[in-house]
Amino acid sequence: MDTAADLIANRPVETGPAAELSQAADPKSPVALFGPDEPLATDAGVQISPFQIAYQTAGTLNADRSNAVLICHALTGDQHFAHTHPLTGKPGWWETLVGPGKPIDTDRYFVVCSNVIGSCMGSTGPASINPATGHPYGLDFPLVTIRDMVRAQAMLLDRLGIPDLFLCIGGSMGGMQVLQWAASFPDRVFAAMPIATGARHSAQNIAFHEVGRQAIMADPAWAEGRYLEAGTRPAKGLGVARMGAHITYLSEPALHRKFGRRFQGGSAPTFSFNADFQIESYLRHQGLSFVERFDANAYLYLTRAMDYFDLAADGGGVLANAFRGTKTRFCVMSFTSDWLFPTADSRAIVHALNAASAPVAFVEVESDKGHDAFLLDEPAMFSAARGFIDAAARARGL
Amino acid sequence: MDTAADLIANRPVETGPAAELSQAADPKSPVALFGPDEPLATDAGVQISPFQIAYQTAGTLNADRSNAVLICHALTGDQHFAHTHPLTGKPGWWETLVGPGKPIDTDRYFVVCSNVIGSCMGSTGPASINPATGHPYGLDFPLVTIRDMVRAQAMLLDRLGIPDLFLCIGGSMGGMQVLQWAASFPDRVFAAMPIATGARHSAQNIAFHEVGRQAIMADPAWAEGRYLEAGTRPAKGLGVARMGAHITYLSEPALHRKFGRRFQGGSAPTFSFNADFQIESYLRHQGLSFVERFDANAYLYLTRAMDYFDLAADGGGVLANAFRGTKTRFCVMSFTSDWLFPTADSRAIVHALNAASAPVAFVEVESDKGHDAFLLDEPAMFSAARGFIDAAARARGL
Repeated sequence: MDTAADLIANRPVETGPAAELSQAADPKSPVALFGPDEPLATDAGVQISPFQIAYQTAGTLNADRSNAVLICHALTGDQHFAHTHPLTGKPGWWETLVGPGKPIDTDRYFVVCSNVIGSCMGSTGPASINPATGHPYGLDFPLVTIRDMVRAQAMLLDRLGIPDLFLCIGGSMGGMQVLQWAASFPDRVFAAMPIATGARHSAQNIAFHEVGRQAIMADPAWAEGRYLEAGTRPAKGLGVARMGAHITYLSEPALHRKFGRRFQGGSAPTFSFNADFQIESYLRHQGLSFVERFDANAYLYLTRAMDYFDLAADGGGVLANAFRGTKTRFCVMSFTSDWLFPTADSRAIVHALNAASAPVAFVEVESDKGHDAFLLDEPAMFSAARGFIDAAARARGL
Repeated sequence: MDTAADLIANRPVETGPAAELSQAADPKSPVALFGPDEPLATDAGVQISPFQIAYQTAGTLNADRSNAVLICHALTGDQHFAHTHPLTGKPGWWETLVGPGKPIDTDRYFVVCSNVIGSCMGSTGPASINPATGHPYGLDFPLVTIRDMVRAQAMLLDRLGIPDLFLCIGGSMGGMQVLQWAASFPDRVFAAMPIATGARHSAQNIAFHEVGRQAIMADPAWAEGRYLEAGTRPAKGLGVARMGAHITYLSEPALHRKFGRRFQGGSAPTFSFNADFQIESYLRHQGLSFVERFDANAYLYLTRAMDYFDLAADGGGVLANAFRGTKTRFCVMSFTSDWLFPTADSRAIVHALNAASAPVAFVEVESDKGHDAFLLDEPAMFSAARGFIDAAARARGL
C-alpha cells in the first residue's frame, strides 16, 4: 500500500490557463503520472507522453499482494465506483456490488478502479493539455482503443506494486476491458467477470454511436473540437447524443413500466412540442445532467474505442484464439432484456472460452431493466457474483 | 373520375415570395383546395383554413364507385406510391405492391394516396404560408393528429366523389391512419389492412422521436422554427434525426448482414472519426439524402402526431371500443424482426378486433428486414395481401 499512498501524496496540482481550460480536473482522485520515460504506446502507432491516470481504491492490499481487484468502468463511468462522486454528489456507481460484506468485499479485497485513458475524470484525454502546443489536445489526441486502456491500467498496477489481479470485473465497455485484460495479460488475471458486453461491437451499436458523434459534431459550439479554446461547449449536441444513447441502455418493457404514455402533470396532450410525456422529460433531464459532468470530445473518443473493439480480429477472426492456453477462470454474465449487448454476444464469448478450454460459467440474469441492469439492484447478479468470487477466493487461498 | 380530373386542372400555381419560401412545392401532384367555407377542424381545437391536399391516383374509378383504395403513407413518405418521385427520381415507394397485376391491382382498383396534412409534399403544413401573416407557419401551424390526417383524407374523398373505400391500407404511420379510418368512419371502409403498426406509440418510440426533435431544435439553423424566413436550413439537425430514426427502421440481423463490421475501402481502422465502417457511411448518406427532400418542421409535426396516437384512449382505455359494431374486415400484418412496431403491437390490435367481433386475419411475416420490411420485396407479404384483397373483392362483388 505504500506505493499507492505515495501516489496520493504526489497528486499533481494544475495551475494557470491549462487548469482553467481542462474539463478533466477531478481534485478528489489520486493520479499516477507517467513521464517522458514511460510513454503509452497506442494501437494507433503513436505515443501519448506524458500522461496520467486518475484512480480510486478501497480496501487494503494484503501482504502477498494477491487480493487485488480491478474494476473497469463503462463508457461514461469513472473511478468513483464506491465513493461519492465529486461532481454529481451521487453515491459510487457500483456501491451495490462493492463494499464491506458485499460480493466484492472491501474487507477482503483491495479494489482499484481507474479512469480510462481518453476519458475526462482526471486521466489524460482530449481535454488535457497537449504538451506540444500548450493547448488542449482536442482532436489532436490520438485515437485510443480498449487495448490502450488496458495497457495504461497495467502500467498503473505496476506503479501500485500489484503483480497480478485476483479479479478483473466490469460491465459494458468495462467488460470489453476485462476480456482484453484476459487476452493481453493472461498471467495477470486469476478470475475475470465480463458483464453485459461483447467481444466486438455490432453494426447496430456502431450505428448508434455514430449518430451520437454526428450530433456532437453538428453542434457549432463543438468548433471542430476546439471548444475549450473557443470558450464554448457543445452542450446541445452532447445532450442529444446522451438522450439517444440512454434509450439503448434501457428496455422497452422498463420504459413502459416506468413511463408508459403518462403525461406530465395532466392527462391530456398540450398539442405542443413541450415535454408532454414523462419519458420526454426524463430523457431531457438525462441529456442536461450528462453535459454537466462529461467532456464532448471524450465521448467521441470512447465511443470510437468501443466501435473498434473486435477481439476476434486479432486472432485471425477466431475469438477462441484470444484465449488459448489461458488459466483465467471466467464468469460471463448477460441480462435477458439487454438489447445493446444481447445474450447472444455473451454466448459467443462463452463458446470461444469453451473452445479455448478455459473454465467458464455463464449466467443469464432474468431482468427487464435492459443494459443498465448491471448498475442496478439485481439480486440474481449479486448472488451469482458472490458465488463466483467466493469460489475463486478459495481457489486462490484468500 | 370527372371530379378528380377537374381537380387536376384546378391545381393552384403559387407565385411570389410565398412560392420561393415554400418547401412544400410539388409541381407533379394535383391538389385539392379547401377554402374558407371548408376548414379542417383539428383535435387541437383550432381550424386550418384554407388548406390543400396533394394526391396521386392510379387506375380508374368504376361506375359504382366501389373500387377505391386509399393508401396511407408513413412518416416520411408521400403520395408518390406508384410514380417516379419528382425530387429523388426514385420509383414510387410501393410499386412492389401496387400496379397492374400486383396485389393492389391498378387494372381493377382506383388507388388514391394523399400527402398527409402537416407534411411537405404539397399538402398544407408548417412550411406553407400562414394566410394570417403572409409568412410560413413554422411553429404557428397547429399540431395535427392522426385523426386530423384522416379527416382531411375523408374531405378529399368527398371532393373526389368517392363515397367509401373498398380498401384502406398502409404501414407504420400509414397503418395508424388505417386504424383511425376504421374507427372514425366504419361505414366507409370495407376492408382494412394495417401493417407494421400499433394502436398507440410506445414509450420507447416516443423517446426515439423526442431525440430526433431535439436534434433538429438544437440546430441553430432551425431558428426557432423560422428557418425559411431566416434563409437557413437545419440540415445537420435533421440529418442526425434521420440517422437515428433509420436505425430503428432496420434490424440488428439486417445491419449485420448488410454491413457487419466491414471497413470502407480497406480492412483496418484509420484511427480517426472518418466514416471507417460501411454502416457509418450508409447512415451519413441516409441523413444527407433525407434533408434534400424533407422539411424539418414537418418532421417535428408528424413525429408528434404519431406520439399522440392512442386509439384506446378515445374509448376509455379499451381498444376494442374503437371498433365496436364495425363491419370492416381486417388483415393485420407484422414482421418478426420489426422492433419499432413489434408483433406484440399487432397482436393487441387483433385481440381488440376479436373482442369487437370484427372479422380479422393476422399475418406475422418471417423477415429479418426490420420495420422497413413493409416497403421491401417480401413475397410472403405480397401473397398474404393478394389473398386478403382478392377475397375482399369477391365479397364486395368486384
